[in-house]
Amino acid sequence: MNSQKTVQETSIQFNQYLKETYSLSGINSLLGWDQQVNMPPGGAETRAKQIELVEVLLHKRSTSTELSELVKKLEQYSNLLDPDTSVNIRETKRSLIRQSKLNEKFVSEKSLACAKAYSNWIIARPTNDFKLVQHDLEKIVALSIQECDLVGYEESPYDALLDLYEPHARLSKVKPLLLSLAEELKELYPIILAKQKHNNSSFAYDENAQYSLCKDICSTIGFDFNNGRLDKSAHPFQSTIGFGDVRMTLRFHHDSFLPALYGALHEAGHALYEMGFKQENIGTPMGSPISLGIHESQSRFWENFIGRSKEFINSLFPTVKKYFPNQATKISPIDIWNEANQVSSSLIRVEADEVTYSLHIVIRMLLEEALIKKELAVKDLPTAWDELYMKYLGIKSPTYSDGVLQDIHWFGGSIGYFPTYALGNIYAAMFSKKMDTDLGGLYKTVTDGRFSEILSWLRKEIHEHGMKYKAEEIIKKSSGLEISSKYFVDYLKNKFLI
Amino acid sequence: MNSQKTVQETSIQFNQYLKETYSLSGINSLLGWDQQVNMPPGGAETRAKQIELVEVLLHKRSTSTELSELVKKLEQYSNLLDPDTSVNIRETKRSLIRQSKLNEKFVSEKSLACAKAYSNWIIARPTNDFKLVQHDLEKIVALSIQECDLVGYEESPYDALLDLYEPHARLSKVKPLLLSLAEELKELYPIILAKQKHNNSSFAYDENAQYSLCKDICSTIGFDFNNGRLDKSAHPFQSTIGFGDVRMTLRFHHDSFLPALYGALHEAGHALYEMGFKQENIGTPMGSPISLGIHESQSRFWENFIGRSKEFINSLFPTVKKYFPNQATKISPIDIWNEANQVSSSLIRVEADEVTYSLHIVIRMLLEEALIKKELAVKDLPTAWDELYMKYLGIKSPTYSDGVLQDIHWFGGSIGYFPTYALGNIYAAMFSKKMDTDLGGLYKTVTDGRFSEILSWLRKEIHEHGMKYKAEEIIKKSSGLEISSKYFVDYLKNKFLI
Repeated sequence: MNSQKTVQETSIQFNQYLKETYSLSGINSLLGWDQQVNMPPGGAETRAKQIELVEVLLHKRSTSTELSELVKKLEQYSNLLDPDTSVNIRETKRSLIRQSKLNEKFVSEKSLACAKAYSNWIIARPTNDFKLVQHDLEKIVALSIQECDLVGYEESPYDALLDLYEPHARLSKVKPLLLSLAEELKELYPIILAKQKHNNSSFAYDENAQYSLCKDICSTIGFDFNNGRLDKSAHPFQSTIGFGDVRMTLRFHHDSFLPALYGALHEAGHALYEMGFKQENIGTPMGSPISLGIHESQSRFWENFIGRSKEFINSLFPTVKKYFPNQATKISPIDIWNEANQVSSSLIRVEADEVTYSLHIVIRMLLEEALIKKELAVKDLPTAWDELYMKYLGIKSPTYSDGVLQDIHWFGGSIGYFPTYALGNIYAAMFSKKMDTDLGGLYKTVTDGRFSEILSWLRKEIHEHGMKYKAEEIIKKSSGLEISSKYFVDYLKNKFLI
Repeated sequence: MNSQKTVQETSIQFNQYLKETYSLSGINSLLGWDQQVNMPPGGAETRAKQIELVEVLLHKRSTSTELSELVKKLEQYSNLLDPDTSVNIRETKRSLIRQSKLNEKFVSEKSLACAKAYSNWIIARPTNDFKLVQHDLEKIVALSIQECDLVGYEESPYDALLDLYEPHARLSKVKPLLLSLAEELKELYPIILAKQKHNNSSFAYDENAQYSLCKDICSTIGFDFNNGRLDKSAHPFQSTIGFGDVRMTLRFHHDSFLPALYGALHEAGHALYEMGFKQENIGTPMGSPISLGIHESQSRFWENFIGRSKEFINSLFPTVKKYFPNQATKISPIDIWNEANQVSSSLIRVEADEVTYSLHIVIRMLLEEALIKKELAVKDLPTAWDELYMKYLGIKSPTYSDGVLQDIHWFGGSIGYFPTYALGNIYAAMFSKKMDTDLGGLYKTVTDGRFSEILSWLRKEIHEHGMKYKAEEIIKKSSGLEISSKYFVDYLKNKFLI
């Protein structure tokens, strides 16, 4: 058999292998989505077993000898491969290499430790009981340190964790980037506070009407309900069941429709990214998100850069009138803007505004780095937490529940995840600057309701490339700028101070 | 290692193997449930791949050498096995033997033929195009005949198909049973027709209120919503995702709440059976339904024997008033009874009343037998259909859509399924006779609202035994009677003529 034919046949096998794994991964997503949206309480134990079963199958598939052999075989003919297949091989190999360094004993130990920490955290958070999870978190930190050693790193051990969520990112770059952002935000924040107007009116908003409003707005910005759904769950999330089936969930507040609306715009941003890969690449790295930072740049772009703009709120107002005719007589778009853009020092990250949000992230990053470098013990974490909140936000949490226990991440074993949220802000500011130029005024486009032009720009510049470029590369390529926090700060100044 | 220990360890392995298969089977149920309840249209292709993937895994697991070896190993120690494990081995072996007779080529050929026939039937039914599916159905009949030869049979080839849905049932017994029933029904039917009252009032019924009414009534008869759900779908069905997660679906008519209500009671009957196995047996034959006939006896018992009784309708009336206060002022329980018990010759099986329903089944059984015996060609099926409908129901379908194309069964490859529906009627009449004695009056129990006593009887006499007994055995055991259509005819006479 000639080389060309071998390459062709092996490429097909390789693609089929990846796509079958993708099918299985979508099944896992459905099990998780249904668990949070539909499952009756009695089904919990059954569901845990079903998810475990699929996860074992997924782990086997993504670390199999069959997959390694396919990659090895194709690598021998690297000069004959088309560019997409080369990317798919590169990224599959990256994942295989990482997995191969983690022995089975370690993987199972970490998985067990996370499950235990998570189930204790579920109890510890509402009961304000840090002691209950302290030992679990010590175990997770110890295992994460071990993971860094097993995976290996060139500069900082933390890089080995960060790389899982933001491939190729290094603390030596991310830390100065986020610290410089934090310094700017600390200065900016009191000026904005002094300037802002408060809005104290609150009305009752029917849940079904909120749902319809959110659905309308998501359609308006380009979410196609033939290829997705919007549902209610205790915690909003986005989940991809597979090509043509991208779902998002919401929760509702009864005295304001804004939390649901901005939740919807955020999840729709994630969803539009997931809907934006080329169909032929679905299931392969060329049809997968680059990093969580890029993912978050999409959600924050739609939620904040677009959604919280005056222009968007103006264009939204007729829809508010449609669903809330009585309440709308008592509020104006300016009132909505004020409510949607309240800035304040708050304890809870997920409730933070655009200005202070990244400060929460810097705090988490510094704590994580210290834990992984063994400069901070878990028992001293609450104290270190308080010191950093005082330093960056000037507040102290009265409880662990609103402090160190507020996020699931650490108790689910995800150390190294937080920085991606702030990278999302920085990335979004960079590409939206270029979009502004390319579209002849981003906010004019919003006023005109030409949302499809915005989405087309994102599709062409970011979504359609899948994992072809690294996160930094795609941002530089799409924005024409070097990575810097300057553009995000400029955006905030422009929005809040002018 | 001593025998006792070997048996113990192998039993545990065997149980785990069965339970893991059950987890996977529940995943398949969820994929199917979601497909019909939630999936956006764009997800169809993705979902088909996911279902195919799980079905391949399920087929591999249920025909694996690992499973055969476990069964063989345990069979060597049959004297040391506990009774439950013996049942699990007996039933697993039954399934393994059948599967082992069907070679891979045949299985894949039948699966493809069914998929093709189904997708053509979807088009053929609304367009009244029998020609479009004639060839597909010929293929399915030919493959079904081949299946009979591969599986083997002692008396009639049809038994090899019937056995898949109603294990151990034989045409030599089922056919005379159903034919004698048909003779009685043909006599009974005109007498009832002459006697019945018509009820022509129709009102508008809000869908949400219908849903709440159905939910209330399902709770009343014992469906536990902590362990299940009720949703809307195009075609009502019941689906078991796993222990603690048993779901059912409904559709709504806007001019009557009765179709939804009786749909709910029917599916709840199936669901209560699925909820009634012992927890420790879940996932094994000892925690599985015996046969489709027994399953149908549960749904028809709750829908018809209980749900369409005067006593139930009286006890239901306050709930009707609660959800439909305006409409309820214009109708009485008697009106509801009349509407719920209208008897008529109708073309569509699923819309047929209690009296004529089994006649539809007899027609299907006779046609299936003739097809499998090669006494009837598919091309002549519509003519044979018309002759039998004229003979048993005195009507002729003006279209194929309301005739031979009305049911999915044949076009999905399920020949031999239909008789189980009529067996369900016969079985339900038999055990409800005994329940009447045991509870000191079944309908008194209904009037008193002591539904839990009815459910407890079913649990104890039928559900909890899983597959321990054959269908005939459990009916004889629970009713103390020999299988006969007499009790069902008596029930109808008592209901409609006294």
